Amino acid sequence: MADEALFLLLHNEMVTGVYKSADQGEVENGRCITKLENMGFRVGQGLIERFTKDTARFKDELDIMKFICKDFWTTVFKKQIDNLRTNHQDCYSHESWGFTVFPTLLFFCLSCTSVRRILSEYHIEYLAFTCGLIRGGLSNLGIKSIVTAEVSAMPACKFQVMIQKM
Amino acid sequence: MADEALFLLLHNEMVTGVYKSADQGEVENGRCITKLENMGFRVGQGLIERFTKDTARFKDELDIMKFICKDFWTTVFKKQIDNLRTNHQDCYSHESWGFTVFPTLLFFCLSCTSVRRILSEYHIEYLAFTCGLIRGGLSNLGIKSIVTAEVSAMPACKFQVMIQKM
Repeated sequence: MADEALFLLLHNEMVTGVYKSADQGEVENGRCITKLENMGFRVGQGLIERFTKDTARFKDELDIMKFICKDFWTTVFKKQIDNLRTNHQDCYSHESWGFTVFPTLLFFCLSCTSVRRILSEYHIEYLAFTCGLIRGGLSNLGIKSIVTAEVSAMPACKFQVMIQKM
Repeated sequence: MADEALFLLLHNEMVTGVYKSADQGEVENGRCITKLENMGFRVGQGLIERFTKDTARFKDELDIMKFICKDFWTTVFKKQIDNLRTNHQDCYSHESWGFTVFPTLLFFCLSCTSVRRILSEYHIEYLAFTCGLIRGGLSNLGIKSIVTAEVSAMPACKFQVMIQKM
């Protein structure tokens, strides 16, 4: 619990810090999101280097995706992915229920529809870092990808990984 | 190891992010240090709330300091404080050998005196967050303090906590 809290608090500070230090223009045209995504990318790269130091070589793409959803995800978020799906071509989507990166405030407001609608507009800033994290991890395993996230019913969260074939 | 890596990578990103987004003036007059210290303060406040949720009431100031050096420190940095000293009035100093917050680069350069001298000028940005972390933790336990850090022989690090009596 303590480790989880440390990550969550640091993550929140980072999101707040990036938005505070940005100009109005930057917030509007999404540069803050890019900044957070890039931060996640570099952290993901660093993490995957350490995680895979002693693991065997991966068989294929699906093997890598399973590693990302199991070992990588569990270390960062202290929970496993709830659902991993693929179209067996270039698209993977994984779902996480009760995604812990959202600030506690969002959980309190889940029962109130109007508040939920307002808050859901802000979820993207809390998902950018995680999208970058997955992209960075995959990148260092030789997979170029585009990672997007969507929140259909909070606090569940769906990440979609589009593999870019070389 | 993995949790430690996550914290270290996030911490490095945070320091780099704050310095990148700052103006030249801000870097010079130390506003970046204040920003990092404040981030640490808020994270420290949040962490101590969770850590002390189920602990018994602390007996005295020394009891609180021991908690900070043992439980709090171990969770964040995955190691205990190496040395805790006090003048039994208002000053505590604790020492940590091989302090992990410094980027790996600094460790590589330890044998080279001239590089060490240059690098040691930059250590302060990697200690500001930790100073804030201790100050925030103590603050939520009712102790107002000033926390400073000094690096006499890298990578050892000495934190000094001056208690401000009400």
